Parts: sequence; C-alpha cells; structure tokens
Amino acid sequence: MSKERGGIFRHLVALSLVACSFSATAKDETRVRARDLGVAPGIFAPGTHNAITDVPGVRVGQVTLKEGDTVRTGVTAILPHAGNVYRSRVPAAVHVGNGFGKFVGSTQVNELGELETPILLTCTLCVWKAADAMADWMLAKPDMQQVRSLNVVVGETNDGGLNDIRARPVTADAVRRALDTSTGGAVQEGSVGAGTGTVAFGWKGGIGTSSRTLPASLGGWTVGVLVQSNFGGVLQVSGAPVGRELDRYAFQKAVAMQAGAQRGSADDRGDGSIIIVIATDAPLSDRNLRRVASRAMMGLGRTGSSASNGSGDYILAFSTADSVRRAFDAPRLETSELANEQMSAVFQASVEAVEEAIYNSIFMATTVSGNGETVEAIPLDRVRRILKQHGIAPPTE
Amino acid sequence: MSKERGGIFRHLVALSLVACSFSATAKDETRVRARDLGVAPGIFAPGTHNAITDVPGVRVGQVTLKEGDTVRTGVTAILPHAGNVYRSRVPAAVHVGNGFGKFVGSTQVNELGELETPILLTCTLCVWKAADAMADWMLAKPDMQQVRSLNVVVGETNDGGLNDIRARPVTADAVRRALDTSTGGAVQEGSVGAGTGTVAFGWKGGIGTSSRTLPASLGGWTVGVLVQSNFGGVLQVSGAPVGRELDRYAFQKAVAMQAGAQRGSADDRGDGSIIIVIATDAPLSDRNLRRVASRAMMGLGRTGSSASNGSGDYILAFSTADSVRRAFDAPRLETSELANEQMSAVFQASVEAVEEAIYNSIFMATTVSGNGETVEAIPLDRVRRILKQHGIAPPTE
Amino acid sequence: MSKERGGIFRHLVALSLVACSFSATAKDETRVRARDLGVAPGIFAPGTHNAITDVPGVRVGQVTLKEGDTVRTGVTAILPHAGNVYRSRVPAAVHVGNGFGKFVGSTQVNELGELETPILLTCTLCVWKAADAMADWMLAKPDMQQVRSLNVVVGETNDGGLNDIRARPVTADAVRRALDTSTGGAVQEGSVGAGTGTVAFGWKGGIGTSSRTLPASLGGWTVGVLVQSNFGGVLQVSGAPVGRELDRYAFQKAVAMQAGAQRGSADDRGDGSIIIVIATDAPLSDRNLRRVASRAMMGLGRTGSSASNGSGDYILAFSTADSVRRAFDAPRLETSELANEQMSAVFQASVEAVEEAIYNSIFMATTVSGNGETVEAIPLDRVRRILKQHGIAPPTE
Amino acid sequence: MSKERGGIFRHLVALSLVACSFSATAKDETRVRARDLGVAPGIFAPGTHNAITDVPGVRVGQVTLKEGDTVRTGVTAILPHAGNVYRSRVPAAVHVGNGFGKFVGSTQVNELGELETPILLTCTLCVWKAADAMADWMLAKPDMQQVRSLNVVVGETNDGGLNDIRARPVTADAVRRALDTSTGGAVQEGSVGAGTGTVAFGWKGGIGTSSRTLPASLGGWTVGVLVQSNFGGVLQVSGAPVGRELDRYAFQKAVAMQAGAQRGSADDRGDGSIIIVIATDAPLSDRNLRRVASRAMMGLGRTGSSASNGSGDYILAFSTADSVRRAFDAPRLETSELANEQMSAVFQASVEAVEEAIYNSIFMATTVSGNGETVEAIPLDRVRRILKQHGIAPPTE
Repeated sequence: MSKERGGIFRHLVALSLVACSFSATAKDETRVRARDLGVAPGIFAPGTHNAITDVPGVRVGQVTLKEGDTVRTGVTAILPHAGNVYRSRVPAAVHVGNGFGKFVGSTQVNELGELETPILLTCTLCVWKAADAMADWMLAKPDMQQVRSLNVVVGETNDGGLNDIRARPVTADAVRRALDTSTGGAVQEGSVGAGTGTVAFGWKGGIGTSSRTLPASLGGWTVGVLVQSNFGGVLQVSGAPVGRELDRYAFQKAVAMQAGAQRGSADDRGDGSIIIVIATDAPLSDRNLRRVASRAMMGLGRTGSSASNGSGDYILAFSTADSVRRAFDAPRLETSELANEQMSAVFQASVEAVEEAIYNSIFMATTVSGNGETVEAIPLDRVRRILKQHGIAPPTE
Repeated sequence: MSKERGGIFRHLVALSLVACSFSATAKDETRVRARDLGVAPGIFAPGTHNAITDVPGVRVGQVTLKEGDTVRTGVTAILPHAGNVYRSRVPAAVHVGNGFGKFVGSTQVNELGELETPILLTCTLCVWKAADAMADWMLAKPDMQQVRSLNVVVGETNDGGLNDIRARPVTADAVRRALDTSTGGAVQEGSVGAGTGTVAFGWKGGIGTSSRTLPASLGGWTVGVLVQSNFGGVLQVSGAPVGRELDRYAFQKAVAMQAGAQRGSADDRGDGSIIIVIATDAPLSDRNLRRVASRAMMGLGRTGSSASNGSGDYILAFSTADSVRRAFDAPRLETSELANEQMSAVFQASVEAVEEAIYNSIFMATTVSGNGETVEAIPLDRVRRILKQHGIAPPTE
Repeated sequence: MSKERGGIFRHLVALSLVACSFSATAKDETRVRARDLGVAPGIFAPGTHNAITDVPGVRVGQVTLKEGDTVRTGVTAILPHAGNVYRSRVPAAVHVGNGFGKFVGSTQVNELGELETPILLTCTLCVWKAADAMADWMLAKPDMQQVRSLNVVVGETNDGGLNDIRARPVTADAVRRALDTSTGGAVQEGSVGAGTGTVAFGWKGGIGTSSRTLPASLGGWTVGVLVQSNFGGVLQVSGAPVGRELDRYAFQKAVAMQAGAQRGSADDRGDGSIIIVIATDAPLSDRNLRRVASRAMMGLGRTGSSASNGSGDYILAFSTADSVRRAFDAPRLETSELANEQMSAVFQASVEAVEEAIYNSIFMATTVSGNGETVEAIPLDRVRRILKQHGIAPPTE
Repeated sequence: MSKERGGIFRHLVALSLVACSFSATAKDETRVRARDLGVAPGIFAPGTHNAITDVPGVRVGQVTLKEGDTVRTGVTAILPHAGNVYRSRVPAAVHVGNGFGKFVGSTQVNELGELETPILLTCTLCVWKAADAMADWMLAKPDMQQVRSLNVVVGETNDGGLNDIRARPVTADAVRRALDTSTGGAVQEGSVGAGTGTVAFGWKGGIGTSSRTLPASLGGWTVGVLVQSNFGGVLQVSGAPVGRELDRYAFQKAVAMQAGAQRGSADDRGDGSIIIVIATDAPLSDRNLRRVASRAMMGLGRTGSSASNGSGDYILAFSTADSVRRAFDAPRLETSELANEQMSAVFQASVEAVEEAIYNSIFMATTVSGNGETVEAIPLDRVRRILKQHGIAPPTE
C-alpha cells in the first residue's frame, strides 16, 4: 500500500465517532450484494453461499476492531480445512500482481508449492504482529511441540486513513479469535474484519466473497474467492462507468484540468491494494494454482483497476482436493491432478468470482468514520440508476 | 497457441477462395474502429492516429500473404525508431501472461533490459524462419559486419485454422518487405499482416492498435499499443455482453448442457493467443516497463479473456525516450527516468489502450476464408444494437 | 530453514553452560580468518578490513543474546548509509536461491527496486518480532511522523539447535541496540549477533564478512559481503575436501552404508540456510543488482553447498553510489549507472567475496553450547593440515 | 553469448586448416576424462558410462560440421526417450542462470512444466534454422499429421571465433542426422557436435557429460548431465587454480596491470556461455525440476565461472520416470513423485555431475583451428602437475 495517502481522502468529512471494541457489526439491511443489483459477471453459476466457503472445508473467521476514535481495523482468517494445515498441507501458489506490499510468507509458498498455515489478512503495519501471533497459535498445538520452523502467511492492505495504523492495533488475541471462530457457511462482507477500515475507488471497501461452480461437463469443480479491497482506479461495474458517473475516480483532477474545468495539482493516483485469496476443490498442482492466481489480475482489471504504483496486489490460490493433499513427512506424493488442458474453465471461473467478490466488498460495505475521517458507503440507489442506464437490472425488475 | 483447434471452428462454413499473393488489402468501408461505435475505454484521450505510431519514431510495416486456398498469414513489424536498434537500444521488458507460445528472444530482453532489433509478429510455426530472416536483414547492415550475436524478437499466434501453418509459408522476402516498408502514421488493422488469418472470440481477429496521451499534469506522455488478436473467451465490449448476445463464446456448450438446452461434449475452450506490443515515449526503466507490460493482462481481461490454457499471451513494452536510450558500447548509462510514484497514469493509459486495440482488431477485421474454413467478421450492426442496449452509442447519435 | 533438524546434531555432546546476557563476546585468539590460513579465493584483492564495511558508508551493528541455558541467538543489522534510508533510498534486489525461509520484505524490494530500511538478520521464528521492532524504530524518527507504510527487510536462519527458538527470544530492545550501535570498520565474526547459535557444515557457523576492490582499470569499485551461515553440505575450502577429511558432511551415512561401512537410516540432509548481503559502491541499476545477487549462489556452491531442500538461501544486493541514490518523492531519477558490459568484474568480485565470507564465518566461530547441545568450532589445526596437503598455506609459511 | 568476442582470442595463432565435412572425429588417445586425472567431484558415484545416457532411455546424437576453413560447428541432440516426446511428454523446467542467449522454447516449458520435443544444442546464430528443422522432423512423423503447434527447444553457445557463425552453417540435414543417429551408451565428448567450435576458459571447450547414481538409501536415482561449454572465468579444477597456474584467466590483464606487471587495456571479460541439460529417472514434479536446474549454477561456479555479463547460461532439467510421464490429451495426471524433503540428494548429485561434465568437456576437447584462429586443447600434462601440487592424483598413482 502506498506510503502517504493521496487526494481522495482530503475532501472527506470527519464525523463524530462512537467507540466500540470487538463490536458485533450490525447487518445493514440497505446494503446488498452484486447479484441483488443484477450484477452477475460471467457465464458460470455461483455456489450455495456465493462465497469462498462453498469450497468444501474452507472456513473463514473475522474479528473487527473498533476502539475509540482511532482503531478501525481487524483480522480475517481463511483456513483451507478444519485440520492442522502444517500436518496436512495444501498445494498453493502466490502471484505478485504488484509488489508494493508487505505480504508475509510468499517465497516459501512458491518454493515448496504448499501452504502450511491458515492465511491471515490485516492492516499493513500489523502484518508482523499478526504473523507472530499466528505462529504462537500454531506452535501451541499438541502435535506441533517439536516444530522449530513455520511459514506463516499474512496479507495486508493499508487502512491508514480510517485507522491509526502507526499504532499497529492488531493484538495476538484478535488473531487467535479470528482463527478460533472460523466457520463455513455465509461470510460477513463489507466493513468487517480486515476490511473494517479499507477504501476502494474512493468509497468504503472491505471484505467481499464470491464463488463459481463449473458445469459437470467441465468437471463440476467449485472456485471460491475472498478479497480485502482497498484499491483505486476508475470503477466500472460490469462495464458500466459507475466511477465517472459518480464523479469519483483516479486521475479525475488531471482529466478535469485538461478539459479546462479545474485548476490545481493532480495527485489522485488511485493508490491502494487488494489481497485476493482463491480456493478450489479442483485437484491442481502448485504450478496450475500459480496460473489461477495470475488470472485474478484480469478480474481485478474488469472492475476498473490498473494496479497503480502504490497498490499491493497479491493473490494466493490453493486447492483443497484430497488427491493433491500433502501429508507432512510423506516421502512420496501420490497425486491425481487436472492436466493443463483442463484448466481453462477453472481460469474463467476464477476471473468471474474475483470480479464479483470485489463488487460485493464495496456494495456490502457501510460508511465508517475514524481517525478524523469518514469514508462513505457507495450510494446504491445511484449505482442502481447507472446500471439500469447500461442495461443491467435485477432479474425481478 | 493451442495444439489442435477446438470447437468454435467446426461449425464454420467453407467458402470458395480466390488466390492473391501480397494483395493490397482493399479497405472495407463497412468496418469501423471502436470509437466509431461509441466504444472509448477509459478516461484518457487517444493520440492523433489512435495508434502505436503516435509514439514519435515508432514505425509499423505489414505484409499480407494470401496464396491459393491455403496461405492466409503475414508479417507485422514494429520498429522502435528509424535507426539501427542494435546500435541505439531501447529499454524493454517482456511479461509472459500465459506462456503457451513460441515467442523468440524474451529471456535476453529481460536479462539485459533492452531490445536490440525490431519486433516481428507472424504465425506460430513461422517464428523460427522469421527470426532467421530478420537476423539476416540486421546482419547485412553496413555497421553490423562484425556482429556475431543478435537477439531477434518474434511473437506469434496460431492462424492454423485459415492458414496451412504446417507449410510455414512465411518467407525471408516477406520479413524483409515488412521491415523495409515500415512507416509512421495510420496503421492498417484487421485481417492484415500477422493478423491475416487469426481468430478472436470466434470471429475474425487480427491487427489492432490504439494510443493514449496523458494530460500535461500527468506528464503528457504517449502510450501506444499494437495487438495481434487470436484468442477466445466471452467477448464483452465496455462490459456489454456481446459474446453472449451473439451466442458465440467459450464454454457455451457446457453452459447450455447444464441448462438442459443441449447435449454432447463441451470442448470449446476459448483457446488462442494474443501478442501485445506497448510503446511509450515516457522515459522508463526496464523494471517499470515490465510493470507496464504486466498491466496489459488487465486490459485483455476487460475484453472477456481469462487467458485460457492454450493461449500464448505475451506482452513486450519499450520506451523510445532519448533520456533512457542506450548507445551500444557506452560504458555508462546516463539516464533520466520516471520515479515509481509517477507510473500510475502510464499503467492506466496502457490498460485503456490495450482494451481498445483489441476491439479495433476485431471490428476492423474482414471475413476471411482459407484452408477449407471461413471465419466471419463480427456483424457490426448487431454489435451496435447490443451496445445501444447497454447505453453505449457514438457521440453523434 | 528446515522444519525439524536432522542427523548432524544428534551426536553432539551437551556441555555445561554459563548464562550471560548481552555478553561482550571475548575475542578468541585461536580463531583466525581465512586469509590467515592461506585461503584467498579468486584473483581480486580485499579492501582495508576485508569486510562489508569497506564499502564507504556501510555500517554493521550486532547484539548477541545469551541467556541461561536456552538463549543463544542475536541480531545483526546492516545499514546502507548513516542517513534515513527511507528518505534516501538505495537501489536493491533480492535473489531467492532456495525459498525455504521467512525472509521479510522481498517482494516490495523487487517491485520497486529499492531498499527503504536497514537490513536485519536474526533467528527464524524471531523475524516477525524483529520486523515489528525495526518498524517502530523507523517510525519514531522525527521525519517519519507521517509515514503509514514501510517495507522492513529481515532475513533469518534457524538456530533452533542451540537456541530455544520456539520462545522467540529476540526483543525490540535488542533490535534497537543493533541498529543504534552500528558502525563502520572491522566487523566481529563467528558466534556473534545473528550468528550466535548457527551451524554450518556440522561445525559452528555464524557471521562472516569479506570484500574485494577491483583494479582501477575495471572501475576500482568495492564489493562487500556479509553472511549469516547456518547451512550444510560437503565442506570444501578452496577445493580442499575438508568435510570428508574431517569425516563430517551431508549424506555421510548414506555413502558409508553403500560402502558397507555402516547400517541404519540416512537422514543427514545437510539442511540449513544462509543469508547473504552484498553491498557495493559501483553504481548499479536494480536489475544489475539482481544479477549480482544471483551470482552469490556460485560462491556458495564453491564452499560445498548444493542448496539442500530445507535451506533458506536468500541474497540481497544494494548499491550505495550517489549517482543511483533515490530521494524520496523525487519525480524523476537522474542516474549514472554501469552498462551491462561493465558488470562481469563486479560479478567475479561478488563470487569471490561470498566464498571468503563463508569461510570467515566458520573459521572465526567459537564453540557454543546451549539448549542441551554443543556445536564445536571447526578444529583449525586439522584444517591447516588438510589445506597444506592440498597445496594451500599462509604466505608466510 | 556475447556480441563481439574479447581479448582471449587475440593472441591465438592461426594454423593451417584441413577441410572435412561430417568428419568422423578420430579419438585422440592423449585426451582423458576428469576421473583419469583423479578429479572426482563430490561424494556420489557415477553411473556405468558416467554420462547422461546412464539415465535409462536417454539418447544422444551428434553431428560435427567441419567444412573448408570456416565451418567448425555442429549439432548435439538429447532425446528424453525413444518414443515421440510430443505424445509422451516428460516434466521439465528451464532455469535462466544468465539470459544473454537465444535459447528457444523456454517460456512454454516453464508454463506447462513439460517438454514436447527433443533438445538441440548448436551455434548461436543457428538456433532458428535448427528449431525450424526440428519442427519439420517432428511434424513429419505419422502420428503428428494434425499437429499445428509445437514447442521446439534449442540451446546455443557462440562458436563465432572458430566458426563463421554469420553464415549460419547448420543445415536441416545436420539436425535430422543428429536426431536420427541418437543412441544410448557412451557419449563422444570434446570438440564434437555442438561443441566443435566452442571455447572454455581460453582453451578448447565442447561437449562433456557425467552422471551420479544415488545410494539405495537415498533412492538409488540416477542424475545425468550433458554440457556444451563455451564460457570463461578463472578455471579451477576441484579447487586447484589451474587457470592462474597456466596464466590464462579472465581479468588477467587488469590484475597484471594493477600489480604493475603490464600496461594497456583490460578487455578480457571471460565471456561465453554454457548450456546444461540434466536428466534424471527420479520422479520429480516440474517445480522440483526447476529447483534442480537452478542448482547447476553452483556446479558451474565450482569450475571458476562467475557467469559473466555476456554468458548465456541456461539449464534444462527433465525427468524420465514413468510415474510422472504425461500422455498427450490425458485429462488427469496420476503421478507419484518425490516429496520436497527427498530432494536434497538429487540436488547434491546434480551439482557434482555438472562440475565433472564441464571438466570432461575441456579435458576431452582437442585443438581446433578455423576461421583464421586456433584454440588449443588444455595441456593435460601441465594440468596433471598442477593437480598433483594440490593433492589430486589418479587412484593408481
């Protein structure tokens, strides 16, 4: 994430704040998911919950930290399965879309082609404390007493606008709670967990999720995605130019200045970051998982990002399939995996689910104030109108 | 490019063919560029020709090979400047979006961070003959008589549907002609040069180009793109679902089968390839050029590709700026280049121009028959109608 | 570093231990540097101190942690220059020789081509606490009060044999002390700082350093190296088979079993890790620094490593030259750097200095006991004898 | 390979030449392999022939081209097995040690993790003609009549000193002969095939091979290596400083000038290249093969290379094991492969065999004159003497 936050924040108005630690985020009934707006990217159907947890075994745990005026952050944990990942490893790969980020653990994942811990998401300057806390949590397990090395994986985006990130407020307790309370089923989205204080396209961003289930003739596999959105660009929703219609997008001032409509400096670079986690039950090699991870950038591009300089865009993909699972200390891996020629539909499903998870993260996010600033939720009524003008409407309308 | 072409071709009807070698491709007045349809991706304005040649000094030369019933291919050459590139090198980088391709010369470009020859595009099995021919052309220059090593750069996509690719019909003469006839100014698009026999989204693809000029407050740089489109996916145009509306897209059968609408095998994988060349006069280091190249995948994603397994998606980016030019045998490089923080607008411009260049390659392409098959040009009247339903129309309408 | 330490440790005898925290490591007069044994790899001469600090401006700070029976670890800090690296950045690159390690910060270094903090070395499970502590130290600087993102760089090797690594004993105070006490001049080697508890080739390893100064006709640049050695293999010193002669090397049991000399399991895999830091005043681009970093693996290979599976072998290279320095927020970089053709001598110097730094780390290391185990210093008298048999002797002999 | 060859060549004396095309290279009884000199790197034993062909099924074919005064080149073909590699693919990976080279086919090998053709080695400017010729040879097979895409793999080094490389004298016929005459068993080494005109460390280089068979307790796998040596540096043989003793090494003039012994320019940069092919019957994933390939740089380093700027150092590794073989068009791969933890011995064997193969390539090479220059075979009597001074002698002495 970028160093010192640019222009979009400057015109946001600070609101009064109410302190509430470990708050149960009340569901905001006015916020809806992309599909409720008629936004259904791609050709494949989502799974039951349209969530990363549609991949059997995958669990998500989230802790939201809101304290006083300054703490607006949290932790989101993704667990590949209910067991000890160190003992029963999943093949995995990390793709670095743009490496302006502090993602912890990527080089070992790619060297060994496997994940040996859950994945945490949190705030930029909190990654190291979160990593240390997850190491603690892992090493305390009864079957981990002899382990002296551990490759924890932690991603981050910078919520330093709404959150006093310099205080590094994420605690070991919050990490443990996120890991211990993880479950399957529906996933809370928006201003929650690691998405509590994030911003996307100038609006409130956060956690979003989506999934796709392939037709039986293409293998019937499920691909699930979870994102922590905190990036910029020129928001488009299924191609509809929402960012321009709402008059909030990257390089807006520079474009206006050139058109003679405005004078001044053009410092709105659309910075920010996104962490994308992709899970699948398709039996994939680590090499093909790396190919899946790289496709996420295409889904990200569809939402209007061009991966600005200060954006830390990392993607981790893993497979939960038994037939590619790696038992610790097994001298041989006996695997049954998809051939290269079977990958295209998995790629397509991944791109679709990434796009939709990002929309969900924004549409479900609620307005948050903190640290002297307020970031508004995107106004869904206006979005609805813009979408309608571009031929996009809910099925029922 | 994929090995043995899949389903989309099977239902195409073979037409009678007329032989014409080195034909001057007559301009088809019914074909228009994206902007003529109201399709203008992004926020930045195009350059004078909306072409890669808007980057000062960049030249393009194309030779179209149509012979008998079987030869439908050609050569497209991109020259970074009018001089000898070996003596006056440009910083460059290659990003491999999906490495199912025979792109020649990528490893040396990335090791040394520079381009020492023009770039050729041609057909898959023709790359090696084309590479050898360009080596010949370069080594014959008066100031190249002592040179014993040369890193020629040649990209390809597979036109093996319309073209008898196994005959490898590209000749040294065609390569020389493409190089020798290169010029600035407007660039022919569609079924021309290396795009003579290519297919995109099930319709005729080919050569396309576009450019962006940044506002003065963002540096005023120009970014130009040229593509050889030959890939598949689910075509969307500024988000409008053209592929689905035209009932021609990847995985179509599988989706139909699942919906109960069709039975049979689902082998339409949307394979194919794209080569993307990005030129800019922004003074960029090879590292930042590699970052530019990687963003092209985001523009590609916006058109509906998910980079299928068999797609050879390669991007080469180079800078023509004097202040980063490398004189052969200079012991030191004295350069003035953009800092990382200045890159975001260049990334945005690149993504926009890639998207538009791809649309241009398809909209400008004309129906081609060859090798017992016909690939139709996309029906622009129907495209117009679909776009209109999605709020996209030419400025004048 | 490998998960659960293999065979070499098993036959080591535990000695009684004396507790001493932050001990001033007394100089052991019997330990000498490689050159004192006549071991002078390569053709170029070392700098004044034969140390990384021969590169003007580079500073090293070390804190040794010895507490009770169980803490045998520490911190080694390398500072590229005396100023704030965040404000005056140095071009840098990381090469991952073998990614079984927890190296923090590599992806951003490679994306942006620069280092914005000092480099820390410490123990495997301590990296995250050390990273957090260095972030604290940096953010507390007066000119860092607005900074909300920081890419700290921390390397590690696993001293989990002599050190109770699961307790993660490195404190924020130790990190600060290492950074605050850094100086130029001679560098303490062996069982000190981050090398306090490490093991190399079955003998005590640790911190080692070396340098080379190129002849004036090759530019006169200085290359300095510092290593944290903790790896295995088949030790050879300037080719002399010291490991075999001393009967201590990787795969020893397996070789003996095959020769019929021994029965049992062959689990000595020569695991371990090495972190290599390369500094130079040659004005290099980040791309050429990455090439320098990759050559370190060749110097490592010369000592008898083959980069075993569990070895985390990371190399970071940076240039201190003013002409490639990057001021924070400068919109343009005006640089004067070496052309590719000038790199070969820098590569040669780097390989030589890496090899010698590794020998120094082992020859200077003293016996250490901790955590119920003892790792002996390599017996230099026997090494001398073996070297002599292979034609290697000090100049004075 | 470097552009315009540097200093070492300049003092070589041109001898009279005898023309002989497709000559049967007479065995020179005075040339011996490394082991005959007592040079036996590492701890593991070689296979039956101490050759890449010790890996069951691997075949080598070589054609030596000597014509008139100017043609001194050839082709070396390595076939992973006797069948059609396109139909029965082997997992494979390419590591780019230093990308100053024209290696053809690397990106697809790494994307798909497999090899679909034999591997050719030849001269730099001949790669494209050789690639085209191998495509011809493959496409002509009865079971290849529908194939329209093929990823041929061709490596090269620059024999432009002894060979008129600008004439690109390698013919399609030579390529076919190399492929068609391939066999198992002993492999001709030295000035033969693709090594006919190459130079290493200022002496005649060429083709070399070696192998290692692991002890049964480590899996019993065989690793075989074949190299085309054409590089420079400071030759050391099992650490003995042969290059310096023979007064022929890279940077020699610069070192002498600094010592006051010589004046003038120091342009001997030790340029050149090496292609290294590693075969194994260990059942390895493509990821672990890439790790094997990267270790070859450590073996190369042991011989005195530091991978100079102009050196094109590429390594391709493949596994012939049935349990990782990939049938064309199989939708699933059922594989049994070594776990990461089993890799260390394979790495060690690879480093050892690379080092020995390089020595073999030089010791077996015979003096060659061509193109107005002569490159002498290394004088083995002097080498023997130097080795003896460093404690290295044949077992029988």
